[in-house]
Amino acid sequence: MTSPSQNLSDDKQAQVSIRAQELAHMVEGELFGNPDIVLTHLAPIEEGSSGSLTFIRAQSFAKHWENSGCQAALVTKGVDVPNHNPDQRALIFVPDADLAIVQILRVLDPGIESPPIGVHPSAQIDPGARVDPTASVGPGCVICKDATVGPSVVLIANVYIGKNSSVGSDTFIHPGVVIGDRCTIGQRGLIFANSVIGSDGFGFLTPTDTRPVTKVPQIGSVEIGDDVEIGACSTIDRAKFGATKIGNRTKLDNQVHIAHNCIVGDDVLLCGRTTLGGSATIGDRSLIGGAVVLNDQARVGKDVKIAGGAMVLDEIQDGETVLGVPAMPSRTALANVAAQRNLAKFCRRVDKTLKKLDDTYTTS
Amino acid sequence: MTSPSQNLSDDKQAQVSIRAQELAHMVEGELFGNPDIVLTHLAPIEEGSSGSLTFIRAQSFAKHWENSGCQAALVTKGVDVPNHNPDQRALIFVPDADLAIVQILRVLDPGIESPPIGVHPSAQIDPGARVDPTASVGPGCVICKDATVGPSVVLIANVYIGKNSSVGSDTFIHPGVVIGDRCTIGQRGLIFANSVIGSDGFGFLTPTDTRPVTKVPQIGSVEIGDDVEIGACSTIDRAKFGATKIGNRTKLDNQVHIAHNCIVGDDVLLCGRTTLGGSATIGDRSLIGGAVVLNDQARVGKDVKIAGGAMVLDEIQDGETVLGVPAMPSRTALANVAAQRNLAKFCRRVDKTLKKLDDTYTTS
Amino acid sequence: MTSPSQNLSDDKQAQVSIRAQELAHMVEGELFGNPDIVLTHLAPIEEGSSGSLTFIRAQSFAKHWENSGCQAALVTKGVDVPNHNPDQRALIFVPDADLAIVQILRVLDPGIESPPIGVHPSAQIDPGARVDPTASVGPGCVICKDATVGPSVVLIANVYIGKNSSVGSDTFIHPGVVIGDRCTIGQRGLIFANSVIGSDGFGFLTPTDTRPVTKVPQIGSVEIGDDVEIGACSTIDRAKFGATKIGNRTKLDNQVHIAHNCIVGDDVLLCGRTTLGGSATIGDRSLIGGAVVLNDQARVGKDVKIAGGAMVLDEIQDGETVLGVPAMPSRTALANVAAQRNLAKFCRRVDKTLKKLDDTYTTS
Repeated sequence: MTSPSQNLSDDKQAQVSIRAQELAHMVEGELFGNPDIVLTHLAPIEEGSSGSLTFIRAQSFAKHWENSGCQAALVTKGVDVPNHNPDQRALIFVPDADLAIVQILRVLDPGIESPPIGVHPSAQIDPGARVDPTASVGPGCVICKDATVGPSVVLIANVYIGKNSSVGSDTFIHPGVVIGDRCTIGQRGLIFANSVIGSDGFGFLTPTDTRPVTKVPQIGSVEIGDDVEIGACSTIDRAKFGATKIGNRTKLDNQVHIAHNCIVGDDVLLCGRTTLGGSATIGDRSLIGGAVVLNDQARVGKDVKIAGGAMVLDEIQDGETVLGVPAMPSRTALANVAAQRNLAKFCRRVDKTLKKLDDTYTTS
Repeated sequence: MTSPSQNLSDDKQAQVSIRAQELAHMVEGELFGNPDIVLTHLAPIEEGSSGSLTFIRAQSFAKHWENSGCQAALVTKGVDVPNHNPDQRALIFVPDADLAIVQILRVLDPGIESPPIGVHPSAQIDPGARVDPTASVGPGCVICKDATVGPSVVLIANVYIGKNSSVGSDTFIHPGVVIGDRCTIGQRGLIFANSVIGSDGFGFLTPTDTRPVTKVPQIGSVEIGDDVEIGACSTIDRAKFGATKIGNRTKLDNQVHIAHNCIVGDDVLLCGRTTLGGSATIGDRSLIGGAVVLNDQARVGKDVKIAGGAMVLDEIQDGETVLGVPAMPSRTALANVAAQRNLAKFCRRVDKTLKKLDDTYTTS
Repeated sequence: MTSPSQNLSDDKQAQVSIRAQELAHMVEGELFGNPDIVLTHLAPIEEGSSGSLTFIRAQSFAKHWENSGCQAALVTKGVDVPNHNPDQRALIFVPDADLAIVQILRVLDPGIESPPIGVHPSAQIDPGARVDPTASVGPGCVICKDATVGPSVVLIANVYIGKNSSVGSDTFIHPGVVIGDRCTIGQRGLIFANSVIGSDGFGFLTPTDTRPVTKVPQIGSVEIGDDVEIGACSTIDRAKFGATKIGNRTKLDNQVHIAHNCIVGDDVLLCGRTTLGGSATIGDRSLIGGAVVLNDQARVGKDVKIAGGAMVLDEIQDGETVLGVPAMPSRTALANVAAQRNLAKFCRRVDKTLKKLDDTYTTS
């Protein structure tokens, strides 16, 4: 008998397989169709071929099933899937198809290659650093004086941990990550390659008649909560004084920039290339799209949704959904965007009428 | 006799020289002017001094020749260059001045300092990795289990190649690049420093009443074609399942971000800081300006041109040229931008007329 | 007696303390209030608790003093602070509160952990490189042939210095920075982690009927002046030929991108994620906000201010303040933005009137 992890494969792995009935059992779903179909890989519903498993999370996807090349689908209960042939194909109904797919992906996940437990001989550990014996410290890592690396932490390779910084247990750090001095990283974190935490905030007194450009020393720190994910090539600056803070379970995509003294709450999602200016704040559970810009000191409330590409100048109240440059409540913004799309045409039309009017006034 | 590479120098190299006639011979051009002028460096046409060579790619540049300090120019055939004094200066006519300059730059290119063939003693090569004996693996590189490094590959320093990943022959990788597990890089690629390929896609189920934020495992891979160039600090995420794909001969500038499951075609150019959301696609030969944002699942056709700073929300048809936020066909967009530039003024004018009208209606 | 650096502490340091009178003496300020208050840390004026020191740079901050939890404040002379109780709290008047805080931060600054003077045994120094004996070269650094590392330079770890490049005295380079071949870095510079200087410019001849996409060799260099600061994950490309130039005392934030052949003047500030297209220029003392985009060949004058998120298409004259997409003089731009915020509403109103008019014309 094979273990579940050998049962359904991704492109780059050996082709293995699972029967529809076994799959239904694994996700505790209700099978409606052929139990003996053999599934070997995941595929989008518009594609698929022999052995493909797909998913139908909502009613809008169900219409694709008829012409899909996939042989089985995980379906959210309540969705009506027309034209299903249960003799040849299989539907597996579950409370939440997205969650079921996550469950399958977890089983299939080959994991990331990690160095063995212990310290690689090429890593440089300061005698004053505390590295837990269950941590894995890969080649080329540098751990400075008074730094702490907790139990089961993984530093893949060429990771730098500055003086007096700490990494909580079970945190996994990819190659090339640089954590400056005096930073705190929580437990079960995941930091992707070449991100930088704890670089100086961009603080300068701009020139006036009586002084030149003057650097403001950035003596604060960065504090990152538990279960935080940070994408590749992201940057989080240390505070001028005090701390730049990222809450628990918050997730940053690649190339996100968090400036000095920002406070980001719990359970926040920040998509790719989003930038926070100095001292900006974001409340719990807010969802921030990609390439968003928050002005210095912008204040975003809790449960806010900000669409990709928006620019926030000042304040967004709790629970609002905003978009645009500058960001506005979505209803107003969408109406304005629609008006902008036709602006030139609209102006020409108005111009014409105004001219006619002017003529009327002039000639009357 | 000196080799061509010693004949015309850039700022930081020793001053060497080539006669106009030799140069004309090298680029197979037609000399019109003094064959004995000695050229020592390249310069823009508005600048230049004794020994400067410049180029006149199109008629619009030709007017600068009269007052240019340059002593010679490569000129695209058919361009008329007024006020040329052939006794003192030299014009060399070629079918395509841009291509001739490329030819000269190739000859002058001092190349990049590379480690010698073989594996540096400080590099860490897993016993299960396959490194071709003609590859150059520099100091601090880490090559994981079952990874393949092809013939004549150069890894300058501190490059990380994950488990089961492969790098095709003649690919040149700058320091600090991180290639995650299960990624495929084609032949003759060029990857600049600190780029990251194969970090996790940013996939989370957002919280609902019945579930917290949930990470979607990203078990797919990245597949990069042949002759691809990737700029510094760019990031390409692995797919949720399946593969994120970059086509042959496609070029990415610095700080470009490609999210999970994107499909970028062949011969595409993506300028600096452009961001692709999840599952976005771009067709062959499209040219994407800098700081462009493609929404999740945006579909850009073939032969599309997108101006810098544009935001693509949904779909751009084959062959279109678009710009703006949101991106629109350039003619409409330019008209709208022009209208926006005068919007406040226009509104004031309309306001005034409307008020006058209201008065008319009220008083009549 | 304790040294000044032990007198006032930040979060992560041991709690030490300074009396208000001593502090006034240190910053050469005039004390108005209780000389014996003991200060232990810095805090924002809206927060603060026992031992907190804050600052009141301008009149607008003074109103917060009454309800602030802080026990002392540095105040710019001339600011009137209402409801001050000098028995229990202390105000210290100085010519410039911002500068006084900088003075205090300098004293408190714990500095950055650096490797000792000399070359770490794991660093790779080419026999042809010149490393000053007073430089500190940390673990994993690679210094190529004919490179020069000046007196008192610090390379923390895993820094790469290419062939023929030079780093001026007292420059401090964080981990993972990559400096390509033939680049010049001035004195007293500060470069944060994982930045890349000297990657190839993004130069390609786009395809035409007679040629495919063709790489234009980028054989130039990068020249960076003295006292320059470069943020984390920033990228500065080498020139096609000649040099990409950054002037003296210019400061770049994180994730800034400077393309090939750009010329940035002296004393310029470039905030986070700003992008310069090829051959763009910026004059001395200009202040550029975050996420700004300069088009290829855009020309920004001296003493220009550009607001965050702006896009510069062509030219900004000396001394102008601009904002918006595309960037316009701030007065016009703000008026246009205000008009855009109400655009849909305005259009509906105009539409209504125009219809009424049309009816009038039709029925009359």
